[in-house]
Amino acid sequence: MGADKFDPNFTQNVIDATGPNASARTREIIGPLIRHIHDFAREVNLTVDEWMEGVNLINWAGQMSDDRRNEGQLVCDVIGLESLVDEITFAAAANAPDAHTATAILGPFFRHDAPMIPNGGTIIKNPVADGIVTYMHGKVVDSLTAEPIPGVIIDTWEASTNGLYEQQDPEQDDCNLRGRITTDENGEYGFYCLKPTPYPVPDDGPAGKILKMLDRHPMRPAHIHLITTHDEYMPITTQIFSSDDKYLKNDSVFAVKDSLIVDFTPLEGNDKATRELVYNMKLKKQPVKTA
Amino acid sequence: MGADKFDPNFTQNVIDATGPNASARTREIIGPLIRHIHDFAREVNLTVDEWMEGVNLINWAGQMSDDRRNEGQLVCDVIGLESLVDEITFAAAANAPDAHTATAILGPFFRHDAPMIPNGGTIIKNPVADGIVTYMHGKVVDSLTAEPIPGVIIDTWEASTNGLYEQQDPEQDDCNLRGRITTDENGEYGFYCLKPTPYPVPDDGPAGKILKMLDRHPMRPAHIHLITTHDEYMPITTQIFSSDDKYLKNDSVFAVKDSLIVDFTPLEGNDKATRELVYNMKLKKQPVKTA
Repeated sequence: MGADKFDPNFTQNVIDATGPNASARTREIIGPLIRHIHDFAREVNLTVDEWMEGVNLINWAGQMSDDRRNEGQLVCDVIGLESLVDEITFAAAANAPDAHTATAILGPFFRHDAPMIPNGGTIIKNPVADGIVTYMHGKVVDSLTAEPIPGVIIDTWEASTNGLYEQQDPEQDDCNLRGRITTDENGEYGFYCLKPTPYPVPDDGPAGKILKMLDRHPMRPAHIHLITTHDEYMPITTQIFSSDDKYLKNDSVFAVKDSLIVDFTPLEGNDKATRELVYNMKLKKQPVKTA
Repeated sequence: MGADKFDPNFTQNVIDATGPNASARTREIIGPLIRHIHDFAREVNLTVDEWMEGVNLINWAGQMSDDRRNEGQLVCDVIGLESLVDEITFAAAANAPDAHTATAILGPFFRHDAPMIPNGGTIIKNPVADGIVTYMHGKVVDSLTAEPIPGVIIDTWEASTNGLYEQQDPEQDDCNLRGRITTDENGEYGFYCLKPTPYPVPDDGPAGKILKMLDRHPMRPAHIHLITTHDEYMPITTQIFSSDDKYLKNDSVFAVKDSLIVDFTPLEGNDKATRELVYNMKLKKQPVKTA
């Protein structure tokens, strides 16, 4: 229903307005983008008032965004779009026989300037009474040869037990629960962190408004963020999720994949930590550049 | 191509996350919205980097918007979305036998506080040397009975010959080329204005960036904005376009309809104006409210 009562040429005319000097990729993207947005509007008989509510929401997202917060990104996250483009971007690599470790969304709380932490060090600057200290460690290997890779930088960040990342929380020191660890000559790394806890995404902006309209909760399952970088290997952005979390099946930003669920196990004989997490990773060589 | 290499349940899972207390209309909208956005991303193999460019563009639109500028709206306008939702909203009324005057988009430059102008007065506060003064007048009638309607308020606004609306231009007085005129006991109105001239939409923000990426010009054909209001009649938001304009066929915001194209004719014997524009309108009664 619906489409045929409207000017049948309108959408094609908008697409055809694209000039000859638009790049091939821009052309490839703009046609389907316009077609899907127009089809959506016709399919639901979107009114001027409803559209204007959407415009206000988008403007509000921008107005809330700054160096520490990306609300436009969070709006995409709650409708699954970041997780989907992550899947699209890494689909080919993930399905290859020499697949690297599975990826997950970056999320809005990454910072480029996390401190370097010595191997075996800790990212906990502000211990908390209800925090379960965990020793996370593992080995990073080449996905094809299984050889260990020294010199991989693992950039990690997590929220504290109050559900806040340090940049959201004036009570936490700068870069608390954030650090970069480098694998040693055996490809091994290890650091102390907190067993992560579930938390809500910020719900005081348009993403929160959308969640309320959709009668959805804002909770994310407990997770630790990781980014690996190494000159010769493809970078990996991922998150790992605690297997005992009650939000694994209904993450508010749809980032969980089975292969990213990990077990935190009891650790004995270590006076710094009561849990252990072994997490090994596989990285894939960058394609050889032909000069 | 494309869709089947990705998790086939992902999009439905996102839609199904909607809770039982979402309103019926929210449910009606959110499913197609998520489906079309996801289908678009899969269809073009949208990458994380490309998506992030889009996020930055949306945040930028919000950051540029304020009381005087609505960049989120302008972004929608250049991809035809405002014009489309205008058509959708008024399609039923426009196709009825007692159709009212055709509608067009509001655009981002409307102000709620235009001054009241006496019938036969002028909206020109700042005469310009290259301005062609026009006497615009006409009759407003009931679309069913053809009876004249007294007391209709016609809110009008237009850009000056430099292509700028008064709120964009420190050289223009507050509310220059903006006013509200009331139809008299015969349903007639008349006021002096400038023959409108083509102008570019603001291209210093994301809408301009999109136009450049698409190799499109930012020009709008010359037009005058009108909104009619009357307690007993449905309000009309429209624009009328000068028949001699070279951008009629490629308006950057796709607002032109044939029935909105008007002729500015030479006017003799009037020492205030050299052009005349006769523009009659038909309004449709509000549906009777059953209490």
